[in-house]
Amino acid sequence: MPLQNLYEKLIATLHFHADLAAALHLLEWDQETFLPAGALESRARQIGALAGLLHEQQTAPAFLDLVDRLASDLPQLEPGAAVDVRETKWRLDRERRLDAALVRERSALHAEGRGVWVIARRDNDFAALAPLLARIVETERRVAAAIDPERDAYDVLLEEYEPGASAAMLHGLFTSLRDGLLPLVERLRGRLAARRLPATALCGAFALDAQRTFNRLVAERLGFDFQRGRLDEAVHPFTMTIGTDVRLTTRYDAHDLRYGLYATLHEAGHGLYEQGLDASAWGTPRGTACSLGVHESQSRLWENQVGRSEGFWRHLLPAARATFPDLRDASFESIVVAVNDARPSLIRTEADEITYNLHIIMRFELERALLRGDLGVNDLPHAWRECMQRTLGVVPDNDRDGVLQDVHWAGGALGYFPTYALGSLFAAQLMSAAEAALGPLDSLLAAGDFPVLLGWLRDHVHRCGQTYRSFDLVTAATGTPPSPDLLLRHLEHKIAFLESV
Amino acid sequence: MPLQNLYEKLIATLHFHADLAAALHLLEWDQETFLPAGALESRARQIGALAGLLHEQQTAPAFLDLVDRLASDLPQLEPGAAVDVRETKWRLDRERRLDAALVRERSALHAEGRGVWVIARRDNDFAALAPLLARIVETERRVAAAIDPERDAYDVLLEEYEPGASAAMLHGLFTSLRDGLLPLVERLRGRLAARRLPATALCGAFALDAQRTFNRLVAERLGFDFQRGRLDEAVHPFTMTIGTDVRLTTRYDAHDLRYGLYATLHEAGHGLYEQGLDASAWGTPRGTACSLGVHESQSRLWENQVGRSEGFWRHLLPAARATFPDLRDASFESIVVAVNDARPSLIRTEADEITYNLHIIMRFELERALLRGDLGVNDLPHAWRECMQRTLGVVPDNDRDGVLQDVHWAGGALGYFPTYALGSLFAAQLMSAAEAALGPLDSLLAAGDFPVLLGWLRDHVHRCGQTYRSFDLVTAATGTPPSPDLLLRHLEHKIAFLESV
Repeated sequence: MPLQNLYEKLIATLHFHADLAAALHLLEWDQETFLPAGALESRARQIGALAGLLHEQQTAPAFLDLVDRLASDLPQLEPGAAVDVRETKWRLDRERRLDAALVRERSALHAEGRGVWVIARRDNDFAALAPLLARIVETERRVAAAIDPERDAYDVLLEEYEPGASAAMLHGLFTSLRDGLLPLVERLRGRLAARRLPATALCGAFALDAQRTFNRLVAERLGFDFQRGRLDEAVHPFTMTIGTDVRLTTRYDAHDLRYGLYATLHEAGHGLYEQGLDASAWGTPRGTACSLGVHESQSRLWENQVGRSEGFWRHLLPAARATFPDLRDASFESIVVAVNDARPSLIRTEADEITYNLHIIMRFELERALLRGDLGVNDLPHAWRECMQRTLGVVPDNDRDGVLQDVHWAGGALGYFPTYALGSLFAAQLMSAAEAALGPLDSLLAAGDFPVLLGWLRDHVHRCGQTYRSFDLVTAATGTPPSPDLLLRHLEHKIAFLESV
Repeated sequence: MPLQNLYEKLIATLHFHADLAAALHLLEWDQETFLPAGALESRARQIGALAGLLHEQQTAPAFLDLVDRLASDLPQLEPGAAVDVRETKWRLDRERRLDAALVRERSALHAEGRGVWVIARRDNDFAALAPLLARIVETERRVAAAIDPERDAYDVLLEEYEPGASAAMLHGLFTSLRDGLLPLVERLRGRLAARRLPATALCGAFALDAQRTFNRLVAERLGFDFQRGRLDEAVHPFTMTIGTDVRLTTRYDAHDLRYGLYATLHEAGHGLYEQGLDASAWGTPRGTACSLGVHESQSRLWENQVGRSEGFWRHLLPAARATFPDLRDASFESIVVAVNDARPSLIRTEADEITYNLHIIMRFELERALLRGDLGVNDLPHAWRECMQRTLGVVPDNDRDGVLQDVHWAGGALGYFPTYALGSLFAAQLMSAAEAALGPLDSLLAAGDFPVLLGWLRDHVHRCGQTYRSFDLVTAATGTPPSPDLLLRHLEHKIAFLESV
């Protein structure tokens, strides 16, 4: 069969897999939004059945042969096709090195880990999780060794989420980032006692239906297309793409507008990325998001760089005032303070923009040490507290607010946390490059010209799909390789603002 | 392998198929409820991909062999297992006689038919549909001949929806039913001019949110379990079971309470049946609804026999008055009139309980004549009008309100309509048997003791699954074979009531 026909067969097969994956995503989305409580167990079985069938299709010998055959002729393919073959082959090669027994064992262990974590966290009982966590770390080591016995286990696992990245690259970036952040945290501490304006301007009474309408309006103004998407509610907000249909979720607090709005902005960032992928390459690597780090750069860009900016609030405040009676007398300055409030705290998901990445860096170091065997699972709670003391100067007095706060490790996701910090770095760099191209972004946001910024992101990030790996994508889009400099500069402006009010 | 092990393998495989079918049902449910408009096309592809894969699983040679092997030892199986094998084998034997090309051709034709019907109906242009409809009739003849060349094509197609039924059985029932209905229609006509009370007591202003709460409350009072189900909205209400999770849909009219309420009651009837199936036999024929006729008997029982009764409204009126200010002054009698209003009309889906089945009988006769070749597709509009004149005495002045009003034939569903009338017959008979067992139902309903009636239906209908075919099930449950007598008696009471007000 001519190469072109083989490639077309690859695309047709990828489309078929993507259609089945969409059905799987709908099962998952529905589970978090509309599923009645009594149907959870049968939903788990449905997901298992379909996931198994999809995996069977994705590792069918005829499909593997097709991909190998195309990969052996990579240089003869036109560049776009070569990307699809390269990335498909890369993923497949990882998968096929894991034998079925290990895949089953791992996935059962992760499910068990998530279940045990819920209980251990509720009971503030790390010892209840520790033996299982030790087995999870051990199993992840075996997984990494099966995929590539020559490489550092952490690198192999990290690439599941951030292909092309390595612990060494992260270590370099994160060391500079921490060195820059620690003095900022010192300044934060100094400012806390001295501040003039309280950060309560967005606290009050906000009717849920009005919030729903308002959040939808905000997502729409940013450029989210509700003809190909939805905004619903979930306990833990997430974004799920079901084929070509991108579904955001958020949650609301009747007494704090920020709780819902910043979840919506974050998820809308993910959703705008998904909606901006090249539709003509749907279902193929070229039409798929680059990495978790890049995904997180989009969510953080809209949530933090845009959503906490003065320009954004200059634009949004009239609509917010018109919608919510409790905002009628809120001053512009008090609102900017309310959305930029910062202080060292215990819980990552509630951390502000300035301290957030110190939480991540700590997790990166701890999970690396766990995998290398430099840190035993039983020593983790102590190491956690020690690390918190050293970086943020606050220490949890229980493990629920410490090492048990995140589900990631219990769910087997080692190497996942760094993508959050990469997202912050990438976002700052992308905003700076967009500003160089488009002129002052704050005035642009104040004018509500979100589509201009979105257009730039589409051209430089979204439409690239997996054509480049994340570090190359950011370098190509911004002209400089990833570095913490622009994030630190952004956060310094923030501190200076907080010091001024 | 011992027979018992083979049977367990059958059950495991049926469970797997049912889990995949649940995923398919969620894709379909979501399409009618929450899918954004721009994602319709990709949803069709997802459904196609998963349906194809499910069909592949259901007709895999190993599965066919397993079923054949078990069927050859049917007498050695215990009775429950024998039901599962018998019904699985019966469905499979129908399916495997259709070659893949015919299945594809048929399904493409039905999809095309539904699409062309939408346009033809909108444009009131039967000629636009006629050639395609002729091909559909011809293809259904071929399908019937492939399944069983020895039998009447209509019987073979009818059994897709009502296994064990035949045109001859229906002809007998429907002839008596019509003979009983025509004099009632005459009496209706006489009453129309003379009536005292208008049927407008449930027209007014009914806030949609209040209706949502009220309809949910009604479904709950009947016994619908929201821990394993939902009530949402759809343009054309339907009920879909997703694994063990039963989802009703309805729609609301802000100016007519009946529009939503009777759709909810109808769908709740379907939903109560699905929730009442034997959970321990889930995914197998014993845990699956018997037939469309029996399904429709449950929806019609709650919608008509219960929902339009005096007892039901004695119970519900206080809650309705408390919810809707516009009902505060409505008299009980005026409401019973409003929900039992009847008159000959053109549109089946808007027809009242008395005239409804004349619409069905007419369609049964026309589709039989089409299949036999006694009636050409081009003569259908004329035959339609002639039939309407003869039975209901009203004639559509356009095909949109005539032969083009239903999608069924254009979608290839020949042999489907009779199940609606069977539902009415079965429902009247089941109510009468329930009354013999439980005492006067009207007082029971007036006391809100719906669970007592539901319990009787669960014992005599729901829990039987496919243990019996529908006519045997009704005979076993009621002590007499299906007949129109009790439905006619029920409708005579209705007429007498209408003549009295």
